[in-house]
Amino acid sequence: MAAINVHGSPFSTASQRVFATLYEKDVDFEFVNVDMRSGEHKKEPFISLNPFGQVPAYQEGDLTLFESRAITDHIAQKFASKGTPLTTGEPEMKVWLQVEVNHFEPASSQLGWEQVFKPMFGMTTDPAAVEANEAKLSKVLDVYETRLSKSKYLGGDQFTLVDLHHLPNIQVLNGTPTKKLFDSRPKLSAWIADVTARPAWSKVLAMQKQ
Amino acid sequence: MAAINVHGSPFSTASQRVFATLYEKDVDFEFVNVDMRSGEHKKEPFISLNPFGQVPAYQEGDLTLFESRAITDHIAQKFASKGTPLTTGEPEMKVWLQVEVNHFEPASSQLGWEQVFKPMFGMTTDPAAVEANEAKLSKVLDVYETRLSKSKYLGGDQFTLVDLHHLPNIQVLNGTPTKKLFDSRPKLSAWIADVTARPAWSKVLAMQKQ
Repeated sequence: MAAINVHGSPFSTASQRVFATLYEKDVDFEFVNVDMRSGEHKKEPFISLNPFGQVPAYQEGDLTLFESRAITDHIAQKFASKGTPLTTGEPEMKVWLQVEVNHFEPASSQLGWEQVFKPMFGMTTDPAAVEANEAKLSKVLDVYETRLSKSKYLGGDQFTLVDLHHLPNIQVLNGTPTKKLFDSRPKLSAWIADVTARPAWSKVLAMQKQ
Repeated sequence: MAAINVHGSPFSTASQRVFATLYEKDVDFEFVNVDMRSGEHKKEPFISLNPFGQVPAYQEGDLTLFESRAITDHIAQKFASKGTPLTTGEPEMKVWLQVEVNHFEPASSQLGWEQVFKPMFGMTTDPAAVEANEAKLSKVLDVYETRLSKSKYLGGDQFTLVDLHHLPNIQVLNGTPTKKLFDSRPKLSAWIADVTARPAWSKVLAMQKQ
């Protein structure tokens, strides 16, 4: 098997998606830290791996990939027979993968930016932006609450990449007042407790302490 | 073969993605117009097809799907042997599918909203929003210009869903001053001339005149 290198940061939500997938699949990889505070992701040699200058980038022998959800999809297919099966092959899974990108990600990443990352960089949270994005996220979570009353996981009856792709932003928002939007929805809360307790996810969080 | 119904609007960019894919694959379908001006997409029976209340929705026998890019992916796989092959199976295609969603779509749909759809609904274009999104889109198009100097299409050496997913927003922006961002990049301009000239895309545009 070709050696796998993941260039990223344990604090980047997009990098965490890739780490979680590799841990779920029980695939060995080497982590290459990209120092984002010094802007390494905007310079060579990283920019040759991803012209958009964003972590993560993935190398597997001669193959170089970027965009976290493209990398997770590749890993899930390439190592289909190893570790946790992360795809069902059902068309509904494609739908819910897109729901995460187009509905959950925009509102939740803005809420993380305002409440966690802006303060971390010495910037001030904008309460109007928090309010607007909580309103957007609430509508998405109402749909999720209904969905999770019909199937155990968002992509179907088994844990898949759909659930996994949500983990980083959920983890960030669990440490903010936005958590109230999770706590007020019982099916959603149970799903969050389930998916955040996965051993692979604990391994991702442990990377932040090294 | 199960009958296919596409619920949408010929003026919706997301619906156009699905129509273009069905025409490329030479798959028969019935178009069900959703009157968005009267808010049909936010009410029953449509809301039972897509709980997010957005066109399009796709029915194929008992299967119901939403999210345009999930539908196109399903059609390309299900009808792999019919019409134009729209996937390569290469991992790099997954990367560029994500680039369209995460980089091209946000800036280009905002530019379409400000310059085409707001005036259509009697609202006023915000020049600051146009400027900010043109700056974002320019950076994306710089990456595309380099990409298209190395491969004929964005997803690789053949036309795929990656290119097709761009068509609706390109068509909208071709009628705005933002077109200057296309015209100033020769590889990009040649690619746009090529992909917008496809017969399947002409059929999609013809739906607007019925």
